Amino acid sequence: MNATELLMKFGSPLYVYEYNVLRERCLQMKSFETDLKGDLPDGITVSMHYSTKANSNPAILKAVKRAGLKVDCMSPLELLINQYCEFDKSEILYVCNNITREEMETVYEAGILICLDSISQVETWGEMFPGTQIMVRINPGTSGVGHSQKVVTSGKATKFGITEENLEELFEVAAKYGVQIIGTHQHLGSLFLNDKIPDYIAGVEAGLDIVKRHFKDVQIVDLGGGFGVPYKPGEQPLDLSRVAKELKPILQQFVAEYPSVKEFKFEPGRYIPCEAGKLYGTVTAVKHENGIYWIGTDIGMNQLVRPSMYDSYHEIALPESSGELVEANFCGNVCESGDVLGKQRQVRLPEVGDPVVVYNAGAYGYSMASNYTGRAKPAEVLIYTEEGDCVTIRQRQTLGNMTEGIEW
Amino acid sequence: MNATELLMKFGSPLYVYEYNVLRERCLQMKSFETDLKGDLPDGITVSMHYSTKANSNPAILKAVKRAGLKVDCMSPLELLINQYCEFDKSEILYVCNNITREEMETVYEAGILICLDSISQVETWGEMFPGTQIMVRINPGTSGVGHSQKVVTSGKATKFGITEENLEELFEVAAKYGVQIIGTHQHLGSLFLNDKIPDYIAGVEAGLDIVKRHFKDVQIVDLGGGFGVPYKPGEQPLDLSRVAKELKPILQQFVAEYPSVKEFKFEPGRYIPCEAGKLYGTVTAVKHENGIYWIGTDIGMNQLVRPSMYDSYHEIALPESSGELVEANFCGNVCESGDVLGKQRQVRLPEVGDPVVVYNAGAYGYSMASNYTGRAKPAEVLIYTEEGDCVTIRQRQTLGNMTEGIEW
Repeated sequence: MNATELLMKFGSPLYVYEYNVLRERCLQMKSFETDLKGDLPDGITVSMHYSTKANSNPAILKAVKRAGLKVDCMSPLELLINQYCEFDKSEILYVCNNITREEMETVYEAGILICLDSISQVETWGEMFPGTQIMVRINPGTSGVGHSQKVVTSGKATKFGITEENLEELFEVAAKYGVQIIGTHQHLGSLFLNDKIPDYIAGVEAGLDIVKRHFKDVQIVDLGGGFGVPYKPGEQPLDLSRVAKELKPILQQFVAEYPSVKEFKFEPGRYIPCEAGKLYGTVTAVKHENGIYWIGTDIGMNQLVRPSMYDSYHEIALPESSGELVEANFCGNVCESGDVLGKQRQVRLPEVGDPVVVYNAGAYGYSMASNYTGRAKPAEVLIYTEEGDCVTIRQRQTLGNMTEGIEW
Repeated sequence: MNATELLMKFGSPLYVYEYNVLRERCLQMKSFETDLKGDLPDGITVSMHYSTKANSNPAILKAVKRAGLKVDCMSPLELLINQYCEFDKSEILYVCNNITREEMETVYEAGILICLDSISQVETWGEMFPGTQIMVRINPGTSGVGHSQKVVTSGKATKFGITEENLEELFEVAAKYGVQIIGTHQHLGSLFLNDKIPDYIAGVEAGLDIVKRHFKDVQIVDLGGGFGVPYKPGEQPLDLSRVAKELKPILQQFVAEYPSVKEFKFEPGRYIPCEAGKLYGTVTAVKHENGIYWIGTDIGMNQLVRPSMYDSYHEIALPESSGELVEANFCGNVCESGDVLGKQRQVRLPEVGDPVVVYNAGAYGYSMASNYTGRAKPAEVLIYTEEGDCVTIRQRQTLGNMTEGIEW
């Protein structure tokens, strides 16, 4: 189906995911895993945990499961969805920060390995569940990587992890409760591409050095995610074979020096569903003011917040428009000036009613959507064959759903 | 009830609104209305339309209605809630941008006056409903006012309104369909305080000059909102009597020169519920890394997005903490570095489990909340007596509500 047909059938706006792209990205991560594992000694495994928060639709998670990947989550609902999608508890990792005692209880009862982010959280966990096993998140102290300062998760100014200078205190707290630290975790930030591979590698080395210097006999080393995808025209896809090639000698050397390690974990999030997803919408107005073309759409910051929140770039197409070639800004239907989808795009001038397509909307699209200004979250549709057969995987939100809970 | 009692009774996190503060702000706007009307000729009215998007809980809207204010809205759901709260159709204004034909149909069927934002939207409306009456939004071209560039809604770089140079084209399109423009609308931006009163006044004058120069016989002039509240310590409340004093001679002169005008409208949004609302939460972790104290809470960017989205300042208190005085950052439980509630605050070091209170959360708090990372939107509670009697006005979101619509 073309854009108009999809919108006619399922309504506008609409998230659409392509199974074959999703599957391909999963398999790339699986190959990356195999590649890394190849040169490591027998008995050392490499695991890819898809980060649920990028897109938690069960259809996405089932595809992840089918491809043989594992999963991580960070809230009771994400955990529930993972369980529903038949991930075994050994395949689920709970990577959280600043959670409540009640939430710790939920994770413990479910028998899921938890990764805690601060000495304070380890203290709370230890009080509740002495003698258990946990992972802890360290802050390797390097400058981190990321598409926006808001997603750089390493370095001095971040809320995440435990720095090297505080590890002795961590060990004391863990020992007090007989809590065994069986793994370390680090995450450097979100969305690195080839130009940032050296920073990523430096961060990995810094983290592994900290593990070697301070941690005794951890079995799991989790190196986090951050694998980027190209959003802008001209950007090259992340060269996973180069990442693997640079990582392999580092991991091999680490294994040689640190024999207790049994598993390396990675946490790809965005990489898996991002490029599989597009957000379809409809042109609702075309204006020309102050020398600027503005193409108004029904895709507001409530449907896709990344451009407003992070000034993120998304490719935008008008697949069925054929007017003159102009430079235009795209915006949504929310009464905020920040409700802008994209600026200064070379496009064919559309007519009202033309379809509009926003690319790379499969990650942090639906999952960050809101009901701001009273608008429903879009439906989600999965195209599951090459021929374009598709199925609704989440219905458009109803007024009833949006008003449930109100005490009128 | 103190913070702990509120959280014990209603759960954490929790939006709490005080009716007496809400009522006071409504009455201040009512006084502002009376003040402005005072010196205008008989037959000229002044109307205050509360902007629903700031907080659309029916309990808030009922308080607004009870105080004798009117309302504006910008989506079918907001309209529905306004109707439910017994605003007469003459009291509701639909101030929208880039809406679909279906949405225009909804507004028309409901008999609500619509304010359209572009020539393109006027064309669509005219095709559908020739011979009807509308308002149009103009862009007065001044630099606007706002707490962040994302909310400045006047000037060259904004998506909003029709500029002076395009008004002749607007009139041609309206004439083509016999659409009568009975009112103009302008809005300069969000959150101006006393220091920006001169900019606001300049914007009003610029807008009125455009009306005089170009529009024939409009009956309604809507000057929008933007009335700010103090978020930071030391900021002074907006001096409404000064705004009125500076506006009055301008409005009087306008009325003298432009006799068709019958009504001035204003659209206070934030001003009304903002200070009435607090967001209560719980300290979940306290860490000290790289010389920085981080106070982790269960209030993430999904519960209150303003600090992450706009770098907005909210006062944060730890009403029951009594540790040493420290400088600390506050953060939530979302795995993003941007998930920071506030930085460099002088507070008493809390213990895990202590309550935390975020001030001025009554506007653009709940209404912008999301389910990012799978977390529920908080309950909303209204304190309706001086003695602290309170009632739930919206239940905490359930897992069932968050997963409704998924095709498992």
